[in-house]
Amino acid sequence: MSVVFPKGFSTASIAAGISAVKGKKDLALVVNNGPLDAAAGVFTSNRFCAAPVQWSRKAIADGHLRGVVINSGCANACTGQAGYDQAAKEAETLASLAGFPKSSDVAVCSTGMIGDLLPLDNLLNGMKAAYPTLASTPEAGHESSVAILTTDTHPKTVEIEAAGYRIGGMVKGSGMIAPQLATMICVITTDAVVTPEQMHAALEHGAEYSFNRIDVDGCMSTNDTVLLLASGASGVTPDPEEFAQNIAKATASLARQIVGDGEGSSHDIRVKVTGATSEDAALACARAVAASNLLKCAICGNDPNWGRVVSSLGIVPEDVAPYDPNDVTVDVNGVRVCDGGKPGQPRDLVHMEEREVHIDIDLNTGSTGEATVWTDDLTHEYVHINADYES
Amino acid sequence: MSVVFPKGFSTASIAAGISAVKGKKDLALVVNNGPLDAAAGVFTSNRFCAAPVQWSRKAIADGHLRGVVINSGCANACTGQAGYDQAAKEAETLASLAGFPKSSDVAVCSTGMIGDLLPLDNLLNGMKAAYPTLASTPEAGHESSVAILTTDTHPKTVEIEAAGYRIGGMVKGSGMIAPQLATMICVITTDAVVTPEQMHAALEHGAEYSFNRIDVDGCMSTNDTVLLLASGASGVTPDPEEFAQNIAKATASLARQIVGDGEGSSHDIRVKVTGATSEDAALACARAVAASNLLKCAICGNDPNWGRVVSSLGIVPEDVAPYDPNDVTVDVNGVRVCDGGKPGQPRDLVHMEEREVHIDIDLNTGSTGEATVWTDDLTHEYVHINADYES
Repeated sequence: MSVVFPKGFSTASIAAGISAVKGKKDLALVVNNGPLDAAAGVFTSNRFCAAPVQWSRKAIADGHLRGVVINSGCANACTGQAGYDQAAKEAETLASLAGFPKSSDVAVCSTGMIGDLLPLDNLLNGMKAAYPTLASTPEAGHESSVAILTTDTHPKTVEIEAAGYRIGGMVKGSGMIAPQLATMICVITTDAVVTPEQMHAALEHGAEYSFNRIDVDGCMSTNDTVLLLASGASGVTPDPEEFAQNIAKATASLARQIVGDGEGSSHDIRVKVTGATSEDAALACARAVAASNLLKCAICGNDPNWGRVVSSLGIVPEDVAPYDPNDVTVDVNGVRVCDGGKPGQPRDLVHMEEREVHIDIDLNTGSTGEATVWTDDLTHEYVHINADYES
Repeated sequence: MSVVFPKGFSTASIAAGISAVKGKKDLALVVNNGPLDAAAGVFTSNRFCAAPVQWSRKAIADGHLRGVVINSGCANACTGQAGYDQAAKEAETLASLAGFPKSSDVAVCSTGMIGDLLPLDNLLNGMKAAYPTLASTPEAGHESSVAILTTDTHPKTVEIEAAGYRIGGMVKGSGMIAPQLATMICVITTDAVVTPEQMHAALEHGAEYSFNRIDVDGCMSTNDTVLLLASGASGVTPDPEEFAQNIAKATASLARQIVGDGEGSSHDIRVKVTGATSEDAALACARAVAASNLLKCAICGNDPNWGRVVSSLGIVPEDVAPYDPNDVTVDVNGVRVCDGGKPGQPRDLVHMEEREVHIDIDLNTGSTGEATVWTDDLTHEYVHINADYES
């Protein structure tokens, strides 16, 4: 169902001839049929942000959006004024097709290769052909969640049935996934009656504890975009706190699915740091461990190599995360392989057959700061995908 | 020749049964026969620093060393008090064999798997068997440079004939190589007449512009050690500035050789950033680009993917390195593939057959800050080595 699970949304998708993969669906439209058109968004903090990000940031500034155009196969990033003009043209075209008052009622998202302009005629023709097929069916929702994929191996969606209202969403992303968002395009919809301010607060909080805490490969994209659209079609005005919790649930589910489909990965790794002096200290430690190529290779080889955990932990400066190396414990899948900075239980006791691997680090500072970051292992297939990927 | 190229040094090596590779030489001794015993060292800044690092830091604090014990096959890291006691015992044993006044005349270096204690009997017996074979021959120098290797594919040495004195050195290191030193053990010798203070200044400066500017995999070791020993046997007192330049030449050569032997690598990548507001700003940008797994995979695939250069550049915060993305140019092997933040020359014009790849980034801020960092590409073989490596 994805984005059409809540009432008041329709979607369409098509193979517009943008992707290098012949016949692959590469264009999706999402339209908010109201009665509300409230919206919120968070975007990449990469300084080389793509033209569609530049456009969408402006479009959403007033807290309102009626439609979204998403394409895979080309990122329209690092394309200068010409790329920005293309993004504007996309928005104008959907606004004109749908009779929206202005082009800034439309956000645009692009994902794919950096440095190429869009094949604009293909894209605009695709939009015109797809527009009449807009629908609110489960099939339409599913097809759109497929159309936005690049190196992803399967669609990633979420549906939450809340108290009288619904939340739905779709996301793409499997490489260039790093601390501040990811190479990801995410559209979340709801039929709740909510204000743009409330949505923005909920989305920022949700993103912070989900998309900003996954790291597939330490690389940050130029195109990351997360949009939240509200139609108000349920007529239900939720408790703001409860609404924020449900948005956080949706972003957590989608982020977890991104890690589950990380490029070439064979293990999903949860790095949890506890006993830190603060959440920030715990987060710095968790990020350092999750970013270790050596550890990620070891996990690929089913090796619970705690030496690579602590050597990564050891690069976090003392003023960022105070702790005594002699107090640190490391559990891998429940086995305490490092105890007080020294060898603990034999590594042979650790079972590594499951896809999910849990690395639990206790800094034992006496405080309770904690944080969790998810990452993937680093595999032959990751190298293959990224040495050969050009589209 | 390596460490015995200068006068006043002898070395010996042996297969002591420390490495998991049966019959591999895994132990080397280096002895300074004087008349001077001046020494300087720089060490890992990893907070989980290994027992031999803890020992050697104290031993060298007085600016004097007469001998070094180096083993491969076991890092003696994260081994607590027992590991420290082992390091002390190694030093005592060489001091006793050689008749040095005190055990702190000896530094010890270990490299290999983290979290295991040394097979101490093997190591001490090996030392006793090797000691009588100490020699100053080219063969002895070569054999020691082989004995210290782990996943390295070949020995890495340097010989510099300076004005009346000599500098020699050997280094190991090919994985866990990151900004602040590397999983490296390096011993540099000289027969110049120099003071510990002068040596320390020269070594710190040399390391900063060599070992601290290479990054194979972004991982920092627990065991990094660079030692500089002076015998004074040439009788020549060099000009301090000229001496420092020659030490910098030696460290630059050894660091470059480490990158050339980076685990599984097929390309050595030089990332040079110019036109920054300061050297620090340039260095932050160069490090960010050199750390990008996606870029390193692209280079492995002979793809001059400048989109992955600028998307890595874009994560450096503006207060760290002010620049305008629209002013940035990127040349790969002399072809300007990105011009003013937009596509430049076609990527097909870039030749990628050579092992060495040059990425030149001009931030065009109007200032002249610049910095260079070397790294390797990320290959299938890197994953293979680090998913399967356990010794």
